[in-house]
Amino acid sequence: MFNMVDLIIKKRDGFELSPEEIKFFINGAVNKSIPDYQISAMLMAIFLKGMNEGETACITKEMVYSGEILDLSEVPGIKVDKHSTGGIGDTTTLVLAPLVASCGLPVVKMSGRGLGFTGGTLDKMESIGLKIDFSMQEAIEMAKKSGLVVMGQTANLAPADKILYALRDVTGTVENISMIAASIMSKKIAAGADVIVLDVKCGSGAFMKDFESAKALAKEMVAIGRNVGKKVVALITNMDEPLGLNIGNCLEAKEAIEILKGEKTGRLLDVSIELGSYMLLLGNKVKSLEEAKKMLLGQIKNGKGYEKFLEFVKQQSKNFDGELKIKEAAVKYSVKAKKAGYVYKMNAAEIGRASIATGAGRLKKDDEIDYTAGIIMKVKLGDYVNEHDEICEIHASDIEKCKRAEEILLSVIDIENERPKLRRLILDVVN
Amino acid sequence: MFNMVDLIIKKRDGFELSPEEIKFFINGAVNKSIPDYQISAMLMAIFLKGMNEGETACITKEMVYSGEILDLSEVPGIKVDKHSTGGIGDTTTLVLAPLVASCGLPVVKMSGRGLGFTGGTLDKMESIGLKIDFSMQEAIEMAKKSGLVVMGQTANLAPADKILYALRDVTGTVENISMIAASIMSKKIAAGADVIVLDVKCGSGAFMKDFESAKALAKEMVAIGRNVGKKVVALITNMDEPLGLNIGNCLEAKEAIEILKGEKTGRLLDVSIELGSYMLLLGNKVKSLEEAKKMLLGQIKNGKGYEKFLEFVKQQSKNFDGELKIKEAAVKYSVKAKKAGYVYKMNAAEIGRASIATGAGRLKKDDEIDYTAGIIMKVKLGDYVNEHDEICEIHASDIEKCKRAEEILLSVIDIENERPKLRRLILDVVN
Repeated sequence: MFNMVDLIIKKRDGFELSPEEIKFFINGAVNKSIPDYQISAMLMAIFLKGMNEGETACITKEMVYSGEILDLSEVPGIKVDKHSTGGIGDTTTLVLAPLVASCGLPVVKMSGRGLGFTGGTLDKMESIGLKIDFSMQEAIEMAKKSGLVVMGQTANLAPADKILYALRDVTGTVENISMIAASIMSKKIAAGADVIVLDVKCGSGAFMKDFESAKALAKEMVAIGRNVGKKVVALITNMDEPLGLNIGNCLEAKEAIEILKGEKTGRLLDVSIELGSYMLLLGNKVKSLEEAKKMLLGQIKNGKGYEKFLEFVKQQSKNFDGELKIKEAAVKYSVKAKKAGYVYKMNAAEIGRASIATGAGRLKKDDEIDYTAGIIMKVKLGDYVNEHDEICEIHASDIEKCKRAEEILLSVIDIENERPKLRRLILDVVN
Repeated sequence: MFNMVDLIIKKRDGFELSPEEIKFFINGAVNKSIPDYQISAMLMAIFLKGMNEGETACITKEMVYSGEILDLSEVPGIKVDKHSTGGIGDTTTLVLAPLVASCGLPVVKMSGRGLGFTGGTLDKMESIGLKIDFSMQEAIEMAKKSGLVVMGQTANLAPADKILYALRDVTGTVENISMIAASIMSKKIAAGADVIVLDVKCGSGAFMKDFESAKALAKEMVAIGRNVGKKVVALITNMDEPLGLNIGNCLEAKEAIEILKGEKTGRLLDVSIELGSYMLLLGNKVKSLEEAKKMLLGQIKNGKGYEKFLEFVKQQSKNFDGELKIKEAAVKYSVKAKKAGYVYKMNAAEIGRASIATGAGRLKKDDEIDYTAGIIMKVKLGDYVNEHDEICEIHASDIEKCKRAEEILLSVIDIENERPKLRRLILDVVN
């Protein structure tokens, strides 16, 4: 048996914790034999002294074992999952999950809600009337039938992560790469898929603002996955501006549908195809990324992707009559450029905050969301605009919210005489 | 108003906390508006990122203000206090407090109990039948009459220190120089003296094993004192071996009496005279350290020091009939040298643990003490012994305890052919 004070001192002094010591720590946190004040001292020591790859893999495994591990063996074939670290206008799941499933590769995905400046898949699904709470048995039945389930996390998934996250959130110890990686990967591993494709967002609209920290996080997560025998790849993708043009729950669902119908292209489609291609490749559905891309784009063209989306909507709706009616906001408000020039830079996180100002997002866990609210971007980085050209369209329930959002948008979308240098969409691939 | 998470993050990232932020932290810890898990995360951040001189002085002041500050203005003259960071056979208080008071300089001192390998003045006083619990008004009355009070801490002295120490103790954040300095100085400052002489022990029997950390602690404490307008000096003194020859409560009281009576000399006398001299000098009783030393040694020779001690005993005893009877242990056991040679090195902390094995000390706060138990050292570092010469005499209630203590003593007192190089008794003076 270990003494928790000794373990805190060991980490405080920069030493590596053994697997047995990490197990003692996580077990004690879950069964409450270790008090919160010792857990938080350990979290700060971990934050400031770090964990190596072995420790990080070990703490992740213990977090996985702290709760139920989903058994997807009843669903035939290789099961694939994806995870995004969160961005603005990032609704890749609603695009690629039906596309990949339509290729015959089962997608069983647990998603989260939006908080802070990023949106959440569950909120977008609920905004168009989809259910997200299912028992594991229901989920497996759906996966066997349609090959596609997107749902909320089951209650007992990696409970250690919930406990540690709640403490990290109130003790200034959130932004540690190892703990972020362990938190994400523990839930993904417990969710049972064989293949995990990670989308690590990087830029002004992401938690990882700079490339180095995004790459470090990607490496840590891939290492954890390798350590537990999962096939994992991480794409570091550009979040210097909103990914899709639509921001807000109904608006993003609408854009996903437009893309699946082949009515729209752009960055959201491009990233979805990249991520989906790795899912197909690692899921052994194709021999190369080129083949995967061709297949996925083909599923848009031939309508199979959208067909799978409708099957998914029918499966997860209470009363679906074959036609998806997406609600619209009462007020639409046009934001005009104050001067002519190139759209030079955006603070995408602040655009997320503007979206919260419209009513589309949450600052606190129990804030209510206006599903119809949000922003449609009318410009991308590098576009040239004339004075008074429309740069955004704000959707909200009243004009006051529109004005608050407009004020933020005008202050965070820079228009300059110079043409900006743009980064690539896919910044790196870590595997 | 501040957000505690922001303050934790500020310190975590190595920034300086403002006086207002430190006040918010300490107030919140005392009035329980800040939960333990946030306090402990802050303590770990402070441990690993440090506090500068201004922050340390500030946290000390807030800890002082968290409780009552003793008002000694009714006691005429400059009031002097001393503090030792704790060692083995370190009973300087019982020697120098009467000596200094006999020179006409009021000594009002709050002392602590022994814990771990070091002894405590309060335990030694109780071992010879002295009371240690007085109200502040009683203490002031005694100080006005005799010029000398040694007592336990009043309950509401620096309560913030008690709260923080309790958390540091269970979160691996004790050994931080700034927090140790703040803890000691908050209590000394709240205790109301004008002059504080600090004895920072350094060596194998001290908390500060090496000179650098002892010096760093001394500097921090002196800086705090200067910051709050107290006259403070710190002596860094040698604790490579027990200070006095006697270890244990009654045994140490006995040695103090022998020294006051002029029957014994040695390291305990020498350190007491050094510390006492600084008390007289800073208390404006003398013009130089030489004058102070002469005065203190004179008070031994002329019997005034012992007279003051007897006055003190009478003042703090229930039924004192003029004669001090010191109890003795049932068993005395002689430890013999296993080989001939020079006493080359001792682990003084382990000698403290041998003393705990005799029953003389505590490992936990509520362990009971055998006042008569302990060890009399028959050798000092550098002494030459023949095989079978007596090196220690163990006092205990039974032979089993003696044997346990003997085993420790034989393993931690090194006898070698080579003569050791000895460090000076007073290693440095910081003011």
